[in-house]
Amino acid sequence: MPVSSPDIADRSPLALAQALIRCPSVTPEEGGALQWLGGVLEAAGFAVERPCFSEPGTPDIDNLYARIGSGAPYLLFAGHTDVVPPGAADAWRHGPFEGAVSDGMLYGRGAVDMKGGIACMLSAALAFVAERGGDFSGSLGFLITGDEEGPAVNGTVKLLDWAGARGERFDHCLLGEPTNPSALGEMIKIGRRGSLTGKLVVHGRQGHVAYPHKAENPIPGLLRLASALLDRPLDGGTAHFDASNLEFTTIDVGNPATNVIPAEARATFNIRFNEGWTAESLGGEIRRRLEMAAGNAVRFTLDLQPSNSPAFLTAPDAFTDLVVEAIEAETGRRPVLSTTGGTSDARFIKDACPVIEFGLVGETMHQTDECVAVADLDRLTAIYARVLAAYFSGRSPSGR
Amino acid sequence: MPVSSPDIADRSPLALAQALIRCPSVTPEEGGALQWLGGVLEAAGFAVERPCFSEPGTPDIDNLYARIGSGAPYLLFAGHTDVVPPGAADAWRHGPFEGAVSDGMLYGRGAVDMKGGIACMLSAALAFVAERGGDFSGSLGFLITGDEEGPAVNGTVKLLDWAGARGERFDHCLLGEPTNPSALGEMIKIGRRGSLTGKLVVHGRQGHVAYPHKAENPIPGLLRLASALLDRPLDGGTAHFDASNLEFTTIDVGNPATNVIPAEARATFNIRFNEGWTAESLGGEIRRRLEMAAGNAVRFTLDLQPSNSPAFLTAPDAFTDLVVEAIEAETGRRPVLSTTGGTSDARFIKDACPVIEFGLVGETMHQTDECVAVADLDRLTAIYARVLAAYFSGRSPSGR
Repeated sequence: MPVSSPDIADRSPLALAQALIRCPSVTPEEGGALQWLGGVLEAAGFAVERPCFSEPGTPDIDNLYARIGSGAPYLLFAGHTDVVPPGAADAWRHGPFEGAVSDGMLYGRGAVDMKGGIACMLSAALAFVAERGGDFSGSLGFLITGDEEGPAVNGTVKLLDWAGARGERFDHCLLGEPTNPSALGEMIKIGRRGSLTGKLVVHGRQGHVAYPHKAENPIPGLLRLASALLDRPLDGGTAHFDASNLEFTTIDVGNPATNVIPAEARATFNIRFNEGWTAESLGGEIRRRLEMAAGNAVRFTLDLQPSNSPAFLTAPDAFTDLVVEAIEAETGRRPVLSTTGGTSDARFIKDACPVIEFGLVGETMHQTDECVAVADLDRLTAIYARVLAAYFSGRSPSGR
Repeated sequence: MPVSSPDIADRSPLALAQALIRCPSVTPEEGGALQWLGGVLEAAGFAVERPCFSEPGTPDIDNLYARIGSGAPYLLFAGHTDVVPPGAADAWRHGPFEGAVSDGMLYGRGAVDMKGGIACMLSAALAFVAERGGDFSGSLGFLITGDEEGPAVNGTVKLLDWAGARGERFDHCLLGEPTNPSALGEMIKIGRRGSLTGKLVVHGRQGHVAYPHKAENPIPGLLRLASALLDRPLDGGTAHFDASNLEFTTIDVGNPATNVIPAEARATFNIRFNEGWTAESLGGEIRRRLEMAAGNAVRFTLDLQPSNSPAFLTAPDAFTDLVVEAIEAETGRRPVLSTTGGTSDARFIKDACPVIEFGLVGETMHQTDECVAVADLDRLTAIYARVLAAYFSGRSPSGR
């Protein structure tokens, strides 16, 4: 895939975002995106590494790690250049990999999730480095994967292990995922709920509907167990988290015969849980509720899927304040500190250093005609620039 | 299919049952069974008709109607010669169409359901006619279909219409379906529950499990509606009927994605209902319960399938007493007058005349190694013989 020269003239976030969108980096394809990004960072003075990770059964994945400076504090910009598939390209107003601008909006797959966010980080970093040269106390890094939208096996997890093994130690991380529901400045994510999936099977005995006493219908038992999980809230939420929430995602019996009582009924549920639980403690509570409801009347099997999505919270501190102030200065909005929504790579980064997330407006992410306001790209770049200036002002929030 | 000559020497129920079992009359195939039966009845003096009925979309079906005598009262023996498929023939101890006898048991598809029953009726009728000649006041008939185990469209329903159009009027009918759970003499069926099937769809709105407020999970709504149908009995039963019973036979959502809230949940239920309901009144009650439980919170669609299985009762009378006494005299058991179990062609016959059902022991019906005790064939024949003798004794239960 031919990419534009890293010797770029236009360092505006729009130009950088267009260059990234034009690389068709649908997971697991690198698509030229990390190659281009590495070239630009290298030209600006960053030391760039491009580790590729493998695992049997998953595609090899390209990643990028770049650092400038050697001292503390170390601020890491994190993100991913891979994107979800565009679907039918002709359903798009503008080609998903064209990077067309129309009526002040930049269109393309990844415009908000999250090539746009990376372009803003890059634009702010290039300006910061150009202004300061190597002359700033601290380090600035980029930790960018090509495996966030896929299995997330050969991406951020391994990249952090790899960096840790090289002795890299980070003080704070800002992840540029789209965090704002509808307007720039609304929301910072300071943690994420955990995710736990359970598969429930209720066992009965097949028979003829006309002779129910000779059979054992598993469906009333399933209704009873499902109600036991839904009737009482799991918790009331915490200071920074909503109440944990359980959703049944499917129930399947698959019995086509209306005169036959089925032998088995299956259901799947997913729980998004807050910091009051671990996957283990929550699994225990679910099992207790089911056992209580089942008594000796309902025979069931519960299979809790292994979870790599714990709940976590980055307790608000001086770094959070710094980001909040930068946002407020540029947008006039004081962002909510939120832990809502789905999972992200922050669930891995939080083991390396405090991590918070702030990026573009997520409204169109994963949709046809994904797009971002060019004005938002400029404002997010200005916010990141303020973060860099404040972080490396000597009044750093890092204790180091 | 070559069949044995109607000029039969051995009129024992065993020999007659073997002859019928050796005709492979799996619905819709006639298999030679009705041809053989007609020949035997004709040789004994019955006027035999073999109407074949058709209907677009279903196979043509052979039927048999035979009558001896022209006066009243008119007693009808009813049944079917078609059988359900044998499944893997090599799984049988003896070939399903061999009619082998081993350790006092006759093996074969239809041994109890209901070639065995027809053989007993036939054996009793041949003996009765041989003894009385045409010299009995009244009429005896056979109404036998080849479409009871199939769609039941070109069978008893049309045969009754056809007979009615010819001016045939019956006083009582004895249907020889297997009615005894485990021992001959236990149970007469004097009615059957009706059957009503409903398909319920709860409508929601698809979305991501992490954002449940943006979606509408149909599964809790389905649990609520299902509970509303199950929590309170439909009735307490009647003098002759058990309480009506509702069974959910399947629930299907079919959503493979554990992070997606589904758009729709589907369930099917079947109700076996007693004489306190018609399909219409019961459908109304179901709809009321669902609407009450749904309120404005749950959007649902209910599709009640057309039912050709109403509940009906043949109120016990002198004819029932006559059959009960015959059973008690031969078996020492006083049969329960029951309305339990699945549907049968009695649901059609009850519109033509009072009908009760008594036959063999149903334990092995529809199973591999379906079999009947030869001793039961003899005793059932003796019971039917007593019924014929008493019915045509001049002390007939018919008012005609």
